[in-house]
Amino acid sequence: MDKNLMADLRGLEALLERTKTEAASFLNRLDELPPAVKATPRDALSLPEQGLGAEPSLRLFMDRYGQELGGSTGPRYFGFVQGGTTPAALAGDWMASTFDLNSSHPGSSAAPQVEQETLEMLRQLLALPETFSGSFVSGATMSNFVGLACARQWVARQLGVDVAEQGLYALGPIPTLSATPHSSTLKALSMLGMGRGSLVRVRGQPGREAMEVEALRAQLDSLGGKPCIVVASAGTVNTGDYDDLEAIGRLKERHPFWLHVDGAFGGLVACSPELAHLTRGMELADSVTVDAHKWLNVPYDSALQFTRHPELLLEIFRNNAPYLDVRQGPAPFADQGPENSRRFRALPAWLTLMAYGRSGYRDIIERDCRLARMLGERIAGSTAFELLAPVRLNIVCFTLRQEGGATQESIRAFLDRLRDDGRVFLSPTALDGVPGMRAALSNWRTTERDIETAWSALLETASQGRAAPVR
Amino acid sequence: MDKNLMADLRGLEALLERTKTEAASFLNRLDELPPAVKATPRDALSLPEQGLGAEPSLRLFMDRYGQELGGSTGPRYFGFVQGGTTPAALAGDWMASTFDLNSSHPGSSAAPQVEQETLEMLRQLLALPETFSGSFVSGATMSNFVGLACARQWVARQLGVDVAEQGLYALGPIPTLSATPHSSTLKALSMLGMGRGSLVRVRGQPGREAMEVEALRAQLDSLGGKPCIVVASAGTVNTGDYDDLEAIGRLKERHPFWLHVDGAFGGLVACSPELAHLTRGMELADSVTVDAHKWLNVPYDSALQFTRHPELLLEIFRNNAPYLDVRQGPAPFADQGPENSRRFRALPAWLTLMAYGRSGYRDIIERDCRLARMLGERIAGSTAFELLAPVRLNIVCFTLRQEGGATQESIRAFLDRLRDDGRVFLSPTALDGVPGMRAALSNWRTTERDIETAWSALLETASQGRAAPVR
Repeated sequence: MDKNLMADLRGLEALLERTKTEAASFLNRLDELPPAVKATPRDALSLPEQGLGAEPSLRLFMDRYGQELGGSTGPRYFGFVQGGTTPAALAGDWMASTFDLNSSHPGSSAAPQVEQETLEMLRQLLALPETFSGSFVSGATMSNFVGLACARQWVARQLGVDVAEQGLYALGPIPTLSATPHSSTLKALSMLGMGRGSLVRVRGQPGREAMEVEALRAQLDSLGGKPCIVVASAGTVNTGDYDDLEAIGRLKERHPFWLHVDGAFGGLVACSPELAHLTRGMELADSVTVDAHKWLNVPYDSALQFTRHPELLLEIFRNNAPYLDVRQGPAPFADQGPENSRRFRALPAWLTLMAYGRSGYRDIIERDCRLARMLGERIAGSTAFELLAPVRLNIVCFTLRQEGGATQESIRAFLDRLRDDGRVFLSPTALDGVPGMRAALSNWRTTERDIETAWSALLETASQGRAAPVR
Repeated sequence: MDKNLMADLRGLEALLERTKTEAASFLNRLDELPPAVKATPRDALSLPEQGLGAEPSLRLFMDRYGQELGGSTGPRYFGFVQGGTTPAALAGDWMASTFDLNSSHPGSSAAPQVEQETLEMLRQLLALPETFSGSFVSGATMSNFVGLACARQWVARQLGVDVAEQGLYALGPIPTLSATPHSSTLKALSMLGMGRGSLVRVRGQPGREAMEVEALRAQLDSLGGKPCIVVASAGTVNTGDYDDLEAIGRLKERHPFWLHVDGAFGGLVACSPELAHLTRGMELADSVTVDAHKWLNVPYDSALQFTRHPELLLEIFRNNAPYLDVRQGPAPFADQGPENSRRFRALPAWLTLMAYGRSGYRDIIERDCRLARMLGERIAGSTAFELLAPVRLNIVCFTLRQEGGATQESIRAFLDRLRDDGRVFLSPTALDGVPGMRAALSNWRTTERDIETAWSALLETASQGRAAPVR
């Protein structure tokens, strides 16, 4: 055995201790760390011929990069819609790395059983009926991919084609109707061989990202009974808007379509009595996307796909021989989703659900929404910024108030200065063509004090280079 | 803040200590743990209304499942082709969970830079020329998916179609030629909308899984210049066989095809002077699949895709606006692969490459191959078992010597008894229709002593219920 491998095998416990110490040091500083950092360009290191051993390598990494990682898992990283990591989820992820179990195949450990149990708890958290079953995927993009793959298989079946076997060649384009789909829906259409061009836009309600259901109905009418796909949003990324899932779902009584609901983060509000009305009708979906590394606050990579049609998963994703009806028990996860082997992803979710329960998640979700409203009120009353949309959920979408209007460049420059200030991180966007930015509050650690800190940073950054301070 | 979240925030360091202790306890027992365990059926737990907090939840998990996880990351798990976790990779994975960085987007941390650096080190380890660039994906199935998505885009381009935009509808089936593709190639064809039926088998060499290059040439001739895809294997799962990549690559001079090389585990032998001849010609590929959670011994989920045509990745996987030629620096990883956001997957690979270097990986790979030959010799000289193929790499493919021949059932029963014995774990297979089993040696911890232990377990399990002991 290589001498470094041998030495590390003997010193494994000391290495774990050292790793824990580094981790604790990072987490203890998390509240003060800049949420994001611009990295210095460097010449890349080459593969060493002889290695350094684990501990010197960890030191080298921390020396070289430790100051430029950023505290994106901390309380004032408001970029994208990115969750943090609860303590229980972090412990679970460490143990998942340690066990390094492949949870796809039954018969060699309890991991597949833990995964089923976790999926059942998540189904309960999402208030989905028992007709839904799920599996873990690596993120919302892959979950949308799985949902749309099922939709593709279902639509083609209505037309007498088995896409999994025959491909899409014998079909005409499958219309995919949506008002404000996440960019990953277009990406999934590309990946699936359906083409980005198969997306058909449905008109939104005035001043909203939610679709005009009457417009959808008219479009479905015009398809004259041709089966198609509808992608509804449960929480849009720019304004946290929701399609009327119940009204859309009712259209299925008269029109043949597959309803896919993208609830990457917004689906989770189903656990809050205060907000659950937003997801009413989600049970009418054929497939549902939910991220776990967003509002569930488990580490990357973790998301869920739920569907009422698991038999389609097997047609598309089975890895080996066709399934027999006599098969007992649930199908291996390897046959239900894109990945064959995969990490014991359920464990961080199992631990965090058990540790904080429904009430813990209500707390995170309702608090983040309350804090977003608070930030929204500051912006609404400000001379420096203006809201681009009402604060509906956990997202504040706003722009710089400046003569001639904000531009992509002025937003970019402002956000770079804000990042370099180090107190808060936001990401850029555009709403109806207007350049702006978003604060997405999705972290269990964020408190009122963080909003105060973030607001000071926003105002001070906006003041820079101006004659008079802004407010 | 929920009282459990608050308590765990205050006690985070103690929780990490407790997690480390559990992890060390597991790893200290790894050599004695059964590599695989059959799980007891249990009623699933429900989502608790109030949580228990992190530490009691961890205790509950270990009490409930701790005895049924199995030591699959230990030295005698020979199932599938599953690597273990080097100490440096484990430390890296813990830190990746702790930082919880999304490494897809540049501009907010050094993570994308570390990923580039890691990819460069891996390119060097794989001895691929500088014309190749790569990115991390979650496993070999997704890597094959990416390679074949590029192939699909390339073939359609030759025919004047942009699949990413227009879909596959305007095309006829795209032939995908291969001799012994991994099952994930068929699954990827299904996912891509190309259909499993588009796979065209190429004859293998007598008694080999490697393709008959003359047969491929004849099939390409018969396509009369129609562009197509060839999937070559660098390490088949059953016998560790390699296609002649150089001879296949040379056919590109006269025939238009995309060459995808599936080197999920076998690609890594490029780092061993003893074995590198097997991957000769890999540089002629258009895309290459390599797993990291196999022979690189980093935790799940980790694999690489490499390609010489990164512009196709952007066409297929770009998440937002089309890329302009004026763009500076490498494209964000979100636009280069299936996932938009993802874990800081490069970190465990960075640390293990730095810790053990090229020589450490040579040690692991050459040792596993030597030990496989050793086990193969035992089997060749045995009355209980017989080899189904020569031991070419790190895989021993064999079957039970029994009257009338082994059946799927007798193999299944034998492997269940072997798993329950607890010393070694193997997975079932069939080679040319003959039911058998495989020992795949892919772990850095495996030593000669483990082969002795495994051999005793195999013989004793084969003896059970027989009048005379086998040998």
